[in-house]
Amino acid sequence: MTKNDVKELQALRQAKGRKERGIFAVEGNKLVEELTNSRFRVNNIFATEQWVEKNPVLAKKIADYEIIAPKQMEQISNFVTPPGIFATAMIPSFKIKPEDSSRELILMLDGINDPGNLGTIIRTADWFGIKKIVISEDTCDPWQPKAIQSTMGSVFRTQIVETDLVKFLSEVKTPVFGALMQGKNIYQTNIKSSSGVVIIGSESHGIRENVMPFVSCPINIPRAEGSLTESLNASVAAGIIISEVFRKNSTQR
Amino acid sequence: MTKNDVKELQALRQAKGRKERGIFAVEGNKLVEELTNSRFRVNNIFATEQWVEKNPVLAKKIADYEIIAPKQMEQISNFVTPPGIFATAMIPSFKIKPEDSSRELILMLDGINDPGNLGTIIRTADWFGIKKIVISEDTCDPWQPKAIQSTMGSVFRTQIVETDLVKFLSEVKTPVFGALMQGKNIYQTNIKSSSGVVIIGSESHGIRENVMPFVSCPINIPRAEGSLTESLNASVAAGIIISEVFRKNSTQR
Repeated sequence: MTKNDVKELQALRQAKGRKERGIFAVEGNKLVEELTNSRFRVNNIFATEQWVEKNPVLAKKIADYEIIAPKQMEQISNFVTPPGIFATAMIPSFKIKPEDSSRELILMLDGINDPGNLGTIIRTADWFGIKKIVISEDTCDPWQPKAIQSTMGSVFRTQIVETDLVKFLSEVKTPVFGALMQGKNIYQTNIKSSSGVVIIGSESHGIRENVMPFVSCPINIPRAEGSLTESLNASVAAGIIISEVFRKNSTQR
Repeated sequence: MTKNDVKELQALRQAKGRKERGIFAVEGNKLVEELTNSRFRVNNIFATEQWVEKNPVLAKKIADYEIIAPKQMEQISNFVTPPGIFATAMIPSFKIKPEDSSRELILMLDGINDPGNLGTIIRTADWFGIKKIVISEDTCDPWQPKAIQSTMGSVFRTQIVETDLVKFLSEVKTPVFGALMQGKNIYQTNIKSSSGVVIIGSESHGIRENVMPFVSCPINIPRAEGSLTESLNASVAAGIIISEVFRKNSTQR
């Protein structure tokens, strides 16, 4: 591994570096294994001797890795204590079309800027079987290390597409649900998991003004009477809404 | 502010330092305001001149603060860029009795070790009107900065008590719900918000073996057919469960 190779890999820490190269990096046993099990195109896998010795089964399964020195691993890793296995892969380019919302529920994220929340929402969507996730251009980069880590591998099993929400929504012909303070009680709303779009806004700004006109069904998670809490965490709110969609469509109650 | 004062305040960054003194610290406009609005006993409030100039209304409302130099604020703050307002308060000692579970639902956390998740769960409980939260001795300290920050002030409106879960549960006479892989579909479970205990375990270990025998009603959040996700984030799982309890008890559906 040359000095330039190290620089190239370090460049993947920044959104700009990832975008220019169309590449992202993942680290650790779970994520690298999930990556190699996925349909994503793997570029390179690097491991230390020490990692291979400690993980003979996984090493044999992954097979196609290059051994690098611990010092080099420290240079390219995002961790103070590197897990010892590091992979790069091509950022996929999925297509999600507005008309897809007539066949399955699309999750839309408007300005979620915390990578931990973004990753957790992707993980929850995957749990409940939502595969298509459309994110606004100012939602944090799903290919950044903290976001990927928080998905716990779900990033490899869902389709995430960054797009202009207004343009996308202007072509959607199914109901568009949006989490709003003045929305209808989510428990009493009829959302189907087989069609439509559900929009989750950021904790601080909510759904943006230019997106708002497209919300045909405003929904709201009711608060206990007398509670002084101002809001829910974005990933908790998304989790409750997605769970409700799933419940309504999976149970006979 | 003497050198020793600075040391005393810095000691509050560690769990040991907080426990020995029975004091914790909060920073930033929102949390300090929520603290002064609460029934917690405030010890000291420190602000910089710059903060007072920028926040005249809140400064007037808080009133009882001591001006310190920006350099001192940097020394005591947990932030690289200190918000400029820093307060200390007594760690409260609430009592939650096992028999309380016959009058209201008690949330029990078994080994939640991520401060962000802990804070988020407290915030969600507060949103849905759950006031009593019992945590195991190895759950992370709710009085540490990151946990308090994640509660967004809910830490001042709920009662959090650290206790021996086994001892507590052995005296509970109401149903005890526990989130388990083999539990009954939460959507079809009858949980009342007016009584009982709900236990949430950690993402990695779940509910511990010594606590398990006390779970009289195992519950589970169902996963979509074919989903390969292994688990939900602990605060999302807690959110979905608490929301379900609230839904069952607030709607006529």
